[in-house]
Amino acid sequence: MSDRVHNFAAGPAIMPESVLAQIRDEMLSLPGLGMSVMEISHRSAEFKAIHAAAQTNIRELLKVPDNYEVLFLQGGSRLQFAMIPMNLGIGQYIVTGTWGKKALEEAKNLGGAGAAWNGSEQGFVRFPSDDELDLDPAAQFVHVTSNETIQGVQFGQEPAVGDIPLVCDCSSDFMCRPLPIEKYGMIYACAQKNAGPAGVTVVIIRKDLLERSSTSLPSYMNYQIQAENDSMYNTPPTFGIYVIKLIGDWLRDSVGGLEKMRELNRQKSALLYDAIDKSAGFYKPHAAADSRSLMNVVFNLPSEELDSKFVAEAAKQQLVNLKGHRSVGGIRASVYNAMPLASVEVLRDFMIAFHQEHQA
Amino acid sequence: MSDRVHNFAAGPAIMPESVLAQIRDEMLSLPGLGMSVMEISHRSAEFKAIHAAAQTNIRELLKVPDNYEVLFLQGGSRLQFAMIPMNLGIGQYIVTGTWGKKALEEAKNLGGAGAAWNGSEQGFVRFPSDDELDLDPAAQFVHVTSNETIQGVQFGQEPAVGDIPLVCDCSSDFMCRPLPIEKYGMIYACAQKNAGPAGVTVVIIRKDLLERSSTSLPSYMNYQIQAENDSMYNTPPTFGIYVIKLIGDWLRDSVGGLEKMRELNRQKSALLYDAIDKSAGFYKPHAAADSRSLMNVVFNLPSEELDSKFVAEAAKQQLVNLKGHRSVGGIRASVYNAMPLASVEVLRDFMIAFHQEHQA
Repeated sequence: MSDRVHNFAAGPAIMPESVLAQIRDEMLSLPGLGMSVMEISHRSAEFKAIHAAAQTNIRELLKVPDNYEVLFLQGGSRLQFAMIPMNLGIGQYIVTGTWGKKALEEAKNLGGAGAAWNGSEQGFVRFPSDDELDLDPAAQFVHVTSNETIQGVQFGQEPAVGDIPLVCDCSSDFMCRPLPIEKYGMIYACAQKNAGPAGVTVVIIRKDLLERSSTSLPSYMNYQIQAENDSMYNTPPTFGIYVIKLIGDWLRDSVGGLEKMRELNRQKSALLYDAIDKSAGFYKPHAAADSRSLMNVVFNLPSEELDSKFVAEAAKQQLVNLKGHRSVGGIRASVYNAMPLASVEVLRDFMIAFHQEHQA
Repeated sequence: MSDRVHNFAAGPAIMPESVLAQIRDEMLSLPGLGMSVMEISHRSAEFKAIHAAAQTNIRELLKVPDNYEVLFLQGGSRLQFAMIPMNLGIGQYIVTGTWGKKALEEAKNLGGAGAAWNGSEQGFVRFPSDDELDLDPAAQFVHVTSNETIQGVQFGQEPAVGDIPLVCDCSSDFMCRPLPIEKYGMIYACAQKNAGPAGVTVVIIRKDLLERSSTSLPSYMNYQIQAENDSMYNTPPTFGIYVIKLIGDWLRDSVGGLEKMRELNRQKSALLYDAIDKSAGFYKPHAAADSRSLMNVVFNLPSEELDSKFVAEAAKQQLVNLKGHRSVGGIRASVYNAMPLASVEVLRDFMIAFHQEHQA
């Protein structure tokens, strides 16, 4: 499709073109069925097969051990911000950006929570080292955000939290790389960056944690009820789960798995970080070098005027959605799994040319 | 599309073929944009226009007064079952079928609620008259289900509840006919019957009721927060809202509005009820004559064996998803807005032929 642009949106974000083409081709009828995936019961054999394949793809790609459930829920990460303390108890939060901050605020409002580390005063530029964490052994979980979309801060490896269950918001870097799932109590990710369309949230939760869910919770928000019903307690977002299934297929068959995906993501983000590092300060990165995100490359130009000019000039080359979040300003190039290397090369070339044109 | 079948599924259910065709045609790129609707920010001008049009369509079709908000939420009606008592207080429930029963159970579990009427002992075959309602003037709302999908029981008009706000689950008959919105405190509908794909729930709520929402609620579940943020408190289910917008367009432009839709729905369901009534008891309707649903035509054959044979023979004529819900048995023909009259005629003809073939 020659009319497709280079879409660096932070989310909802670019999807693999081959996946979109398959959705298009099957829109009026799943193969041989005579109905759209949106028109069939979630309890039909056809949908159950799609649902199971979506789960199996995630299990195989992330090597999820058998003692974890894979759920598909609604309400986005926001609803998880509430469900986590409501189900799991009082937690400690490692706050490395806007989303961790919001998760902590929600938990505080619902009955209490504290910070094990908070990077707010430094402007959320880095992930802490383990010895900086102020862990309370009585905490019922530790919450962390693996990748802060707005600040472009990602951890290289999991924080060491001992026996306290680690709960991780992977919304913006889900399946961007392999993860040692056994280190986690729970992982969750709204789909609209790397996994599917907005409106589905993947939850991977260790089965022993389900015992914590009280029967007095709103039933939809009860992880145990959702697990017992295999995410079919009520009608799940069937179309979204179908897309998650197709994206899992793509990760396995076209990309070749998560090791390959990580390699490609490193290659793509490195193109942009290299352009930043070689710009002699013209492009100023937001994140510290050891906390740079593979997914969201955030940087500022010497002035807001140049930021705006950069965005406007880039758009002329079909490089779109590069404006940084209002809380950080500057430029944010989101290079999620589905972003082709070729598009990143176009952006890199544009960055070099724009710098040359505007250096003093 | 000659390979499309006659899909009588109860939900997720049939959608207008022209809408599916438009979704297909725009899947890789919204006109002129170079991106799929799933790939753009919910805060982009393009998506905001879609979101606003989806709201405006509903406002215009249902003649929603200005003192009501139109929200698009996630979590299905199940999450509404919890949000309603959590936001609005202790209510009374008019229980005319399975979904009203589940709504009442959820409210009871969350702190109390009672029944103003309960048709359970009669097997949920009818809607009560106003003088049968046992209303408590202290109730903070009265909850009703306008159409019970499983039993095929629909009200002809709203129950009279005086000044108590009426909260109505319209999930399975939303926009099947005009409604006097000013009689309601709140209307809600999961989209997957008449309005769109699974994963979006439309909430129409009178603005004065928003004051009841406590700040101690989980923020996603707080109607006031959702209204203040125009359903963009977090990323909404953008694709689902886009489809709701297209279905609103279809209702206005292809159908000609909700008066026309009601006429057509009456015509379609009458074809089937007539076949039932003229079958000399071969087809036994579930719902009492004055409570028959325009959307779900539920009936039994003389034996379970014949029920099964009916379903199997029908499938040979591409008449699919006719099996009744396990709790009621028999046959359920769901004839939602998008069901073409021609498909209902095929089913009607099949019913007459099947009866002739199997009468004693």
